[in-house]
Amino acid sequence: MTTRRITEHLPFGEKRDPRFFGQDILSVSQFDRDDLETIFAVAHEMYGIVERIGSFDLLKGKILTNLFYEPSTRTSSSFVAAIERLGGSVVQINNVTYSSVSKGETLEDTVRTMESYTDAIVLRHPEKGSAARAAAAAAKPVINAGDGPGEHPTQALLDAYTIREEMGTMDGLTVTMLGDLKYGRTVHSLAKLLTMYDVKINYVSPDILEMPESLVAEVDAAGIEQHATADLDEVLAATDILYVTRIQKERFEDPSEYDLVKDSYVITPETLSGAKERMAVMHPLPRVGEISTDVDSDPRAAYFRQMEYGMYVRMALLALVLGRA
Amino acid sequence: MTTRRITEHLPFGEKRDPRFFGQDILSVSQFDRDDLETIFAVAHEMYGIVERIGSFDLLKGKILTNLFYEPSTRTSSSFVAAIERLGGSVVQINNVTYSSVSKGETLEDTVRTMESYTDAIVLRHPEKGSAARAAAAAAKPVINAGDGPGEHPTQALLDAYTIREEMGTMDGLTVTMLGDLKYGRTVHSLAKLLTMYDVKINYVSPDILEMPESLVAEVDAAGIEQHATADLDEVLAATDILYVTRIQKERFEDPSEYDLVKDSYVITPETLSGAKERMAVMHPLPRVGEISTDVDSDPRAAYFRQMEYGMYVRMALLALVLGRA
Amino acid sequence: MTTRRITEHLPFGEKRDPRFFGQDILSVSQFDRDDLETIFAVAHEMYGIVERIGSFDLLKGKILTNLFYEPSTRTSSSFVAAIERLGGSVVQINNVTYSSVSKGETLEDTVRTMESYTDAIVLRHPEKGSAARAAAAAAKPVINAGDGPGEHPTQALLDAYTIREEMGTMDGLTVTMLGDLKYGRTVHSLAKLLTMYDVKINYVSPDILEMPESLVAEVDAAGIEQHATADLDEVLAATDILYVTRIQKERFEDPSEYDLVKDSYVITPETLSGAKERMAVMHPLPRVGEISTDVDSDPRAAYFRQMEYGMYVRMALLALVLGRA
Repeated sequence: MTTRRITEHLPFGEKRDPRFFGQDILSVSQFDRDDLETIFAVAHEMYGIVERIGSFDLLKGKILTNLFYEPSTRTSSSFVAAIERLGGSVVQINNVTYSSVSKGETLEDTVRTMESYTDAIVLRHPEKGSAARAAAAAAKPVINAGDGPGEHPTQALLDAYTIREEMGTMDGLTVTMLGDLKYGRTVHSLAKLLTMYDVKINYVSPDILEMPESLVAEVDAAGIEQHATADLDEVLAATDILYVTRIQKERFEDPSEYDLVKDSYVITPETLSGAKERMAVMHPLPRVGEISTDVDSDPRAAYFRQMEYGMYVRMALLALVLGRA
Repeated sequence: MTTRRITEHLPFGEKRDPRFFGQDILSVSQFDRDDLETIFAVAHEMYGIVERIGSFDLLKGKILTNLFYEPSTRTSSSFVAAIERLGGSVVQINNVTYSSVSKGETLEDTVRTMESYTDAIVLRHPEKGSAARAAAAAAKPVINAGDGPGEHPTQALLDAYTIREEMGTMDGLTVTMLGDLKYGRTVHSLAKLLTMYDVKINYVSPDILEMPESLVAEVDAAGIEQHATADLDEVLAATDILYVTRIQKERFEDPSEYDLVKDSYVITPETLSGAKERMAVMHPLPRVGEISTDVDSDPRAAYFRQMEYGMYVRMALLALVLGRA
Repeated sequence: MTTRRITEHLPFGEKRDPRFFGQDILSVSQFDRDDLETIFAVAHEMYGIVERIGSFDLLKGKILTNLFYEPSTRTSSSFVAAIERLGGSVVQINNVTYSSVSKGETLEDTVRTMESYTDAIVLRHPEKGSAARAAAAAAKPVINAGDGPGEHPTQALLDAYTIREEMGTMDGLTVTMLGDLKYGRTVHSLAKLLTMYDVKINYVSPDILEMPESLVAEVDAAGIEQHATADLDEVLAATDILYVTRIQKERFEDPSEYDLVKDSYVITPETLSGAKERMAVMHPLPRVGEISTDVDSDPRAAYFRQMEYGMYVRMALLALVLGRA
C-alpha cells in the first residue's frame, strides 16, 4: 500500500492528492489509516531527501504564516525549518496578543488578512476550537499547531511516525505510556491514533494521574488490549515503545505524595537494563528530569530523533496541503 | 499612458526608472499623478504574476531590513510577504526599544548599521519625521511604514490602488469617507492623493469628528467637489467607494454621546441595501464592529482584497526602489 | 600564502577545509595565524562577490539557527544577512528565556533539538562557557556569538579583518586602543589576536580603566611592544588604527571623576587633525558620544565599514564550517 502510494505521487508536484490538497489539518480524528500511511510515506521520502541533499525546492515561492498566539518555540521552529527545507519561506508572527494585528481584532479577521499575503497558516492559539474557527474563516489551508486544551495533531502524527521509523511497523507492538496520563494531551492523541493499528497499550502512572476512563473506553471499543499499572517493572520487559511524559508537582495536592512517586517514573540506564534491546524511548520534550541525561547515549533513546521526525512529518503535511505531494 | 508605461519597463530588470531607483518613499506628497500611475501599473503586474505563479525571483538575493520601533504586524507581514514573493529575504527587527541595537544608539546609527548588511530599510517609528531622518542618514532606500503622527504613505498608496483595481479607474468616482475623519491618518492621506484625480468626496462623521478644515481647504484648492454630512443615507446611493474608519469611544468627552452616534456608523447588510450594486466598501483594518461580519460575504466587501492589494503595492515599491521595474 | 589559499579552495564548494569543516567557533585562541589568513581570504572573496552581485547561492538549502538567550540585534542581524546573502535561511529564536523551548529545559537539550532541524547554530548566551557546553552537546557546528563574560570570537575576527581591509596588512602597524580597556571584552580579544602579527599597541585610558596586567603580560610574552598612557595626544600622531570604546559612567565610584576624564576620550574632527591622513577609526558600536557624528564624514571613520566587514567575516565562517569554502 505504502509503496504503491509512493509510486503514485512521484514525481513530486505532478499529483495533487484530493484528500489533502487545500485541506485543513485540525484533528487526528480526521484521518483514517490510509491517510496516515500517505502522510508517513511522504514524510519518509522527505527524510530520505533531507539525508541526501538537505533541502529541495518543492515549495519554492510558497509562503507560510506561522501565527503563534502563545509561544511554542519548538513547534514554531520545526515548521519554519520544514518550509525552508522545501524552498519556501515564512511570515512569523509571535506574541500576537501584544501586536497591532490583534488589537481588538477577531481571530477570523487576522486569519483572513494573513491568507491574503500567504499560502497557508499554521496556528497556535490557547483556546480550544480556535483552529476550527480559523479554518472556517480561511479559504487557504490552516494547520492546527495546538489549540489549548483541544488538539495538537501534528504532535500526534510525529509520535506515530516516530514509532513507525524506529520499529519499521506499528502492528504487533506493545506501547507503554508512562507518567502523567491524566492531563497529558500527547498521550491522549497518540492513544487515539494507535486504535487504527494492531497494538497493545500499557499505562503506567500514579493512581491520581491515570488515563481518563472515557479514553480507555474509546480505545477498548477499537478492540485494543490495554493494561494499567503503577509499576513500570511489571510491563517494561515486553515493551517496544516507552513513551515518557512529565509528572508535574502541581498535580499533587500533597507535595509529599509527589516526592513518594516521582523517582519511580524517572528513566535511568538501570531502568533500561530491564528493557528489550530493540526498543525506543520517546518523550515530547522538554524533559525536566524524567529521563536521565545518562540515557541519551543509549541507542534506544529516540527523543531527539523524534524531534527530527517531526520536521519530516511537517514537511509532508505542507507538501500535501499545498498540492505538491 | 499606463499601457505605454507597462510596455516600457518590460521585461523586468532591464530598466531602472530614475524616478524611483535608489529613492526613498517618505510621503504621498512626493508623487505626481504620473508616478502614481507607474506604481499602480507595476502593482497590477505583480497582482497578475502572483495570481498565476505565486512568486518569482525578481529580487532574488536582495535583503530587506524590516525595522519596527513599534509593533504593526499587519504592515510588517505585508512587507515580509512582498519581498519573499519577489524571491528576496528579510532581516526582521521588532521592539527595537528593548534591543541592544538601540541601547542609547541614535536612529541614524542603527540605520547606517542595517544598510551595511541589507539593500533597503522599511522603518516604522513613533516619531514624526523619523523616516526623513533615517533617509538622510542612509545611502540606501528607506521606506516609511508609518512615522507616528506623520505619514504612512504605503497605506495611502494601497488605498488608492484598491479603488483603481475595484472600479477600474479613479476618475468620475464618488468617494465617501465615514467615521472618525478628524484623527484618521488614512483618510487624510487618501484625500490628498485623490486631489490628483477627478473625483467627488463626501465626508460622513459626527460633528466632533469632522475632517480638519485645513485639509478641506487643500482639497478644495485642487478643485475637488466636497460635501460634509452626519447622515450616511444622504450620500450612500451615489457612492462608488465607501471608506469606513473606526470611531473610538475615547474621542468623546461624554460617553453617552458616543452611544448616541455609534450605531449610525456601523455598516450592515441593511446599510448596503441602499447602495449601488457596483460599489466597494473599504476599511484599513483592524475593524472592531464598524462593519458587521454579515457584510463579509457581500461582493462589495473589499477590505480583505484591500489587504492583498497592499502586498502588490509594496512589491511594486520594492521592485522600483531596488531598480528592477 | 593568502593567494595560494584562494587558488586552492576555488571554485567554491569543491574543497572542504578540514580545519573548519564541521568545527565549532568558540574562541579566538583556537586559531593560528594561518587559520586567520584563511578566514580573512574567504571573507575578502565574500566582500568582492557581495560588491559585484549582492548574494549568491553557496549555502542554498542550508538553515542556520540563530539562538539568542539575550538580545543582540546587531550580531543577530549580521548573521541573518550573512546566511541570506549565501542563499541560506534562518530559524530565529529570540528571548529564549520566555519561550517554551527553555521551560526548564537545559541548554544542551535545546541545542540538540535545534540541530535536529538545522545545519548550524549561532549561540548568544549570558553564561561564560555556555558555547562550549552547547558545542559538546551538538554534533553540528556551534558558533559562539558571545557567552557573557566569556568570548565573542566573531567580533574579534571582524575587528582584525577590518584592520586588514583598511590598511592592506597587519604587520608594521601601530594600534591604539582607547577608552575602557579594563572591562572592554572587544579590546581584550583583539589584543590577543594581534599577538600573531608584528604590531605595536598603545593603551590610552583613565588610570582606573587600564588594560588588565594579565593581558599585558600575555601580549608581552608574544614579543609585542606595548605602551600605556592616559593621554591620546602622546600617541595619536603615530597611530594607524584608533580603536575607540565606550567609557561607562557606572565604572566610576565618584561621578565627578567621570566628568573630569570623559571629554579627553571623545573623538572629534579636531582630534583627527593631529592624526595620520591614512588611519582608521574603529568602534564596536553602539557609540554614545565617544565619537562625534561630525567625524562620520571623515574618510578615516571606519566604524560603519567595520559593521559591513563583520558580515563578510560571518559569511566566511558559515561557508567554512558548512564545508563550502
